[in-house]
Amino acid sequence: MPELRHDPIQKRWVIIATERARRPSDFHPEPKDGAPAGFCPFCEGNEDKTPPEIFAVRGPGGRENGPGWDVRVVANKFPALRIEGDLDRAGVGMFDKMNGVGAHEVVIETPCHDLNLADLPAPHVERLVSVYQQRLNDLKKDPRLRYILVFKNHGVTAGASLAHPHTQLIATPVTPMTVAQELEAAREHYTHKERCLFCDVIRQESESGDRIVYDDGQYVALAPFASRFPFEIFLAPRAHAHDFGDLSAEGGRGFARALRDVLGRLKAALRDPPYNFVLHTAPNTSMGPRRPGYWATLPYDFHWHLEIIPRLTRVAGFEWGTGFYINPTPPEDAARFLREAGEGNPAP
Amino acid sequence: MPELRHDPIQKRWVIIATERARRPSDFHPEPKDGAPAGFCPFCEGNEDKTPPEIFAVRGPGGRENGPGWDVRVVANKFPALRIEGDLDRAGVGMFDKMNGVGAHEVVIETPCHDLNLADLPAPHVERLVSVYQQRLNDLKKDPRLRYILVFKNHGVTAGASLAHPHTQLIATPVTPMTVAQELEAAREHYTHKERCLFCDVIRQESESGDRIVYDDGQYVALAPFASRFPFEIFLAPRAHAHDFGDLSAEGGRGFARALRDVLGRLKAALRDPPYNFVLHTAPNTSMGPRRPGYWATLPYDFHWHLEIIPRLTRVAGFEWGTGFYINPTPPEDAARFLREAGEGNPAP
Repeated sequence: MPELRHDPIQKRWVIIATERARRPSDFHPEPKDGAPAGFCPFCEGNEDKTPPEIFAVRGPGGRENGPGWDVRVVANKFPALRIEGDLDRAGVGMFDKMNGVGAHEVVIETPCHDLNLADLPAPHVERLVSVYQQRLNDLKKDPRLRYILVFKNHGVTAGASLAHPHTQLIATPVTPMTVAQELEAAREHYTHKERCLFCDVIRQESESGDRIVYDDGQYVALAPFASRFPFEIFLAPRAHAHDFGDLSAEGGRGFARALRDVLGRLKAALRDPPYNFVLHTAPNTSMGPRRPGYWATLPYDFHWHLEIIPRLTRVAGFEWGTGFYINPTPPEDAARFLREAGEGNPAP
Repeated sequence: MPELRHDPIQKRWVIIATERARRPSDFHPEPKDGAPAGFCPFCEGNEDKTPPEIFAVRGPGGRENGPGWDVRVVANKFPALRIEGDLDRAGVGMFDKMNGVGAHEVVIETPCHDLNLADLPAPHVERLVSVYQQRLNDLKKDPRLRYILVFKNHGVTAGASLAHPHTQLIATPVTPMTVAQELEAAREHYTHKERCLFCDVIRQESESGDRIVYDDGQYVALAPFASRFPFEIFLAPRAHAHDFGDLSAEGGRGFARALRDVLGRLKAALRDPPYNFVLHTAPNTSMGPRRPGYWATLPYDFHWHLEIIPRLTRVAGFEWGTGFYINPTPPEDAARFLREAGEGNPAP
């Protein structure tokens, strides 16, 4: 019998199709989710083919916008939002609009075109994580930007238009709906129980163990009880923390280790599947208490986390029409396959 | 400058990328969103290759599960939900689950494998619309089923696993999140204003005219102000009506005419694009007033409509992570292209 499961964070029901459960081999890419060939503006030596550098990690002697970098951040050449201008919030009859003020940056993860994030050396992933943190904290200084989203599209099916490994940041002048729903669900839980909803989920999942993919004491990765997609993963620090921007050096090392491990398992079990990851962290509170009460409990009720979504199934009319998902792989099975897959990437 | 627009129905912001606006020709399919070849269980003569018939429209002399039908309804061979069994609602620690009780049916739109809904003769589309209505009203008799979704996946990219034209019905034991959000937004608007939110949108859009695609006085099709996707369409009766199941014969004829016209325009402008459509109608109230007050204003505050979503852009990490969309074609441009496209299908 298929099962309906409820996600207490997004308050969303999911259909888990237990009977026709699909294994990793059912999802192996075919044909290969191919890398578009040709010239790559993100490769070392082509620095003048991107907008100017916003930030870079480079060895001694390197010069800005030249080669010799490890991680490089540039503005998106085709930005969804622009940093210049005023919001100009306005009504249009019964509708509302504002200018698309924001930021859209690209983090080029490595100079090597063909290296996969999962295969980068551990110290390199640590540098990358610290770049995410640095850019997040820098963008937060702009009080027009309410939310800063760090996300990655890996593979054409997942929306990557360039094959060279890269992550993106989009800073928006409103708190996006999905994040607002999470913030509200977390606040409601905290209001009633004075406990963090995410801490409660992590505690219950650790006790059961059925859906745990990775646990080193510092970070936990799990297949959510009401996973929308096969092999969906939730990765979070075990200790309560609401803001990725506050990460300590030790916390950053731990996150890099967990991320590398989990992406390596996905790569091994599903043969380098297309995927998206998105970081859900606290909204930007630098504009001060304009909305009184909104931030007061934020450090206690919200818990930052990363969502990883392999793009293995097509989202069709049913999902768009209802916001409710049919998942052909029970998360208990997905977690077991990923635990058995081993790290899959070379030793750190 | 890109523009942020707010959807008062889903309370969702959308980024409209006005500067790099994309025209219909930017989306022409390439390579062809091909029909999988081979044996088709939905073709006339293969009636024994599907689960038994639930309903069919046939001429005189035809026999059940034999050829000679115009429209045929069968159970889905691989159902997401099953009609047998009890819900058995239960908690799993802090989580909730229930059995996947529901229904999953397929409406085979025509015996002809290669005919497109947009190209079916007008009287045939009328029969099809009346089959949707008949199945909806029949499934409503089961009080376990809270919501019945009529939807269509056209083309491989839109999730169609068989090329033969078909529509699906899924009946769920909970009200899906997207529909619940619409119901709540509509109720809130009605509570404050004693007017229907959708009637207000239709009235404002008719006055401006900028986003209107089709208007015959009885039905209106428009590109929503905060369209998530290029060439997204909202189609609804102009006169207030909350339940598609209550459609009169005249209303059904009008809906068939509008649907055929709009799908023909999309086919002409975008060269037969993959698309989904989903019918948003009132939830099933046949279980009686179990949730007091929930239904009281439903006939006044909700307004049934069809959402049509061409699948032209990839949904990537940003969209999944935020529930907020980047649309490269302003809806004013989309509506103009579709008005100019003409009907595109043969005269009725």
